[in-house]
Amino acid sequence: MSQAGAQCTRALRYGAPESSVMVRVGGFRFAAVSAGIKKDSKPDLGLVVADGGAVAAGVFTRNLVRAAPVDVAAERLRVARSVHAILVNSGCANACTGRAGLDATLLSTRAIAEALVLDESSVLPASTGVIGVTLPHERVIASADDLVAGLGDDQAQSFAEAICTTDRWPKLADESLGDGRARLLGIAKGAGMIHPDMGLVGSPHQATLLAFLFTDALVRREVLEYALVAAVDKTFNACSVDGDTSTNDTVIALASGASGYEADAGELGHAMFAVCDKLARSIVADGEGADHVAEIHVRGLSTTEDARIVARTVATSLLVKTALHGKDANWGRLLAAAGRAGVRFDPSRARIAIGGVDIVRDGVTLGGAAEKAVAAVLAQSSYVIELDLGGGPGEFVYLTSDLGHGYVDVNASYRS
Amino acid sequence: MSQAGAQCTRALRYGAPESSVMVRVGGFRFAAVSAGIKKDSKPDLGLVVADGGAVAAGVFTRNLVRAAPVDVAAERLRVARSVHAILVNSGCANACTGRAGLDATLLSTRAIAEALVLDESSVLPASTGVIGVTLPHERVIASADDLVAGLGDDQAQSFAEAICTTDRWPKLADESLGDGRARLLGIAKGAGMIHPDMGLVGSPHQATLLAFLFTDALVRREVLEYALVAAVDKTFNACSVDGDTSTNDTVIALASGASGYEADAGELGHAMFAVCDKLARSIVADGEGADHVAEIHVRGLSTTEDARIVARTVATSLLVKTALHGKDANWGRLLAAAGRAGVRFDPSRARIAIGGVDIVRDGVTLGGAAEKAVAAVLAQSSYVIELDLGGGPGEFVYLTSDLGHGYVDVNASYRS
Repeated sequence: MSQAGAQCTRALRYGAPESSVMVRVGGFRFAAVSAGIKKDSKPDLGLVVADGGAVAAGVFTRNLVRAAPVDVAAERLRVARSVHAILVNSGCANACTGRAGLDATLLSTRAIAEALVLDESSVLPASTGVIGVTLPHERVIASADDLVAGLGDDQAQSFAEAICTTDRWPKLADESLGDGRARLLGIAKGAGMIHPDMGLVGSPHQATLLAFLFTDALVRREVLEYALVAAVDKTFNACSVDGDTSTNDTVIALASGASGYEADAGELGHAMFAVCDKLARSIVADGEGADHVAEIHVRGLSTTEDARIVARTVATSLLVKTALHGKDANWGRLLAAAGRAGVRFDPSRARIAIGGVDIVRDGVTLGGAAEKAVAAVLAQSSYVIELDLGGGPGEFVYLTSDLGHGYVDVNASYRS
Repeated sequence: MSQAGAQCTRALRYGAPESSVMVRVGGFRFAAVSAGIKKDSKPDLGLVVADGGAVAAGVFTRNLVRAAPVDVAAERLRVARSVHAILVNSGCANACTGRAGLDATLLSTRAIAEALVLDESSVLPASTGVIGVTLPHERVIASADDLVAGLGDDQAQSFAEAICTTDRWPKLADESLGDGRARLLGIAKGAGMIHPDMGLVGSPHQATLLAFLFTDALVRREVLEYALVAAVDKTFNACSVDGDTSTNDTVIALASGASGYEADAGELGHAMFAVCDKLARSIVADGEGADHVAEIHVRGLSTTEDARIVARTVATSLLVKTALHGKDANWGRLLAAAGRAGVRFDPSRARIAIGGVDIVRDGVTLGGAAEKAVAAVLAQSSYVIELDLGGGPGEFVYLTSDLGHGYVDVNASYRS
């Protein structure tokens, strides 16, 4: 964990520039402290409080192996009428820690509930960091009063920094609702173990990406949940740094209603997608060691699901990701990855374009001039790769990063 | 392709040491030349001739995107009564090359057939190298006479070297049949784009691994085919360097019968598995930039197929492979990868052992002493990782390599 948070002070450079995000949203206060969970004494404990309570919705990793905080948050969200707080620690995932880990999560949220004079069931926990290490709950308990004392409606940036692990920058994004009458603020972390697959509580499956969405609009729970699931499915669940789905992925949306503005489902859905999309792009741009973000657009297959499978296979191909790192227009790897996805299409009809420049038509290369034009595109920090694989209506967009030496550096020595 | 074959002169250091392999097998002659397909003037064209013809069986990549030589070899094998030659080039995959690529393969095998005074349909082609570049058949044609003139029953080593691309060493392995009355010689290449998924001609799918198996035993075609498919399924189809299935993977077995010894199905199957297993281990050990070979043993699931899926997911996890590169006993990544495989098991019953040392029991770590013992295992060049995930009968073994900077070096600049 030596890197944990080490570089989490750089300004957000992708998606939503830090300076443009309004960090206040009605009904919410934020705080962060260094509790000593990370080895390097960086901030590692964050708290959000909705003083008047908030309508809540959440999606959690569908990995069979779920961390204790995921189990606790999912169960509390299932029964809660109203949520009052979210407690997030970085530096320790508290996953694969058995009964001791569960107790550590329960004792941590209890300490925060007591400091806030709340029912502990209205505090949702989330953790990120090393797997297999039990949360040092005594450090959380010792920091509870300091954390609560530091709550402020202008502390979202501090909260965003405290939840970082290998992130190079904190991730915030916002959208306005009702022409500025209400707002939606999103805060996320994530740079590695990023291949989220999240669903509602009780769904058969379960990524470490953490994201929290806060709005002061008035929203009914079903509307909030529907907007969240729809947005996550096309953003966080459609992005990959390394193909590894975490034990701890959690996205929670809270609506305080403090603005009094009632958002309709369409407007909320639109804003939710926009904020999640910005956060997902920021996470992929921050992929461990990554220099580029590629949007993989797959079109022309029979179904959306077929297109999703092909897009995911291309987006997670090591040979594709290393070629992108080398700025190499190795379109053969793109087509070969699509071909092993298990979805039927006719390779001899394939069209591939990179940055709008056609490089393959009818399954064969257009030659040197096209490759040269594409090479210039691949030097950019982000670009679109299109694979048109037939005449069907199925299409899907996946975000991926290149993969280079930085990824190996971070992950061959993560625990040392 | 600057690396192509550049290091293909080192001695085989894993599986079957070069010195122990007998390179002669009755009924077969081998040859190799530099035809100028590789940029660096290393040998890049190999030929095997069964002068009296041979019974043949083959499996090919199930990638939808199949190279021209795969299409041609699969079709010729489907109709052939007897195969007389295999022509293999390195340096160019001749994949995604359309009609021009198909013509190049046909013209190349025709030139060899003419030089050998054979029917061209009894010559099987195989190619490996860059995708998207058409085979320069004029160079093959210009080299045909030299190639045939160089045929010798002691030239298997030269053939093995000529078919290498990014391989650090040529790969040969052998077994005796009938107490030395007959033999099985295997020759393979492969170091990257290794995640074979091969099946019989006409099966719905389709890996660049090339392997050729030569025996002088008398074998019926159905027996040869059965032994080949069974062996490939548990060896080449159960190993991964990078999870990317090639457009060109091909395994062809030829039986000349020259020894007059009739091998039964059991004996042949045993020898075929042993040779393929040695070759697969050598390929994974030679995984681009790899220092370690890990055998992932998954047990206790409901079915063999469930165990295969979990073993494959663990074997292809980037976080697992980078941890192995760092010699880090990060068992949490092993369990997290198993948990996202889509197969049901109870994580709280999981047992994990590395090199025979238990590190996780009942889903939780056994602590520092176990981790220390395992760290010593992870420094070795090969070891076994066991995941016991329940009480079911399903088990499967997958071979994988660690992944480090060498892989990025090779693949971010493969075409430059």
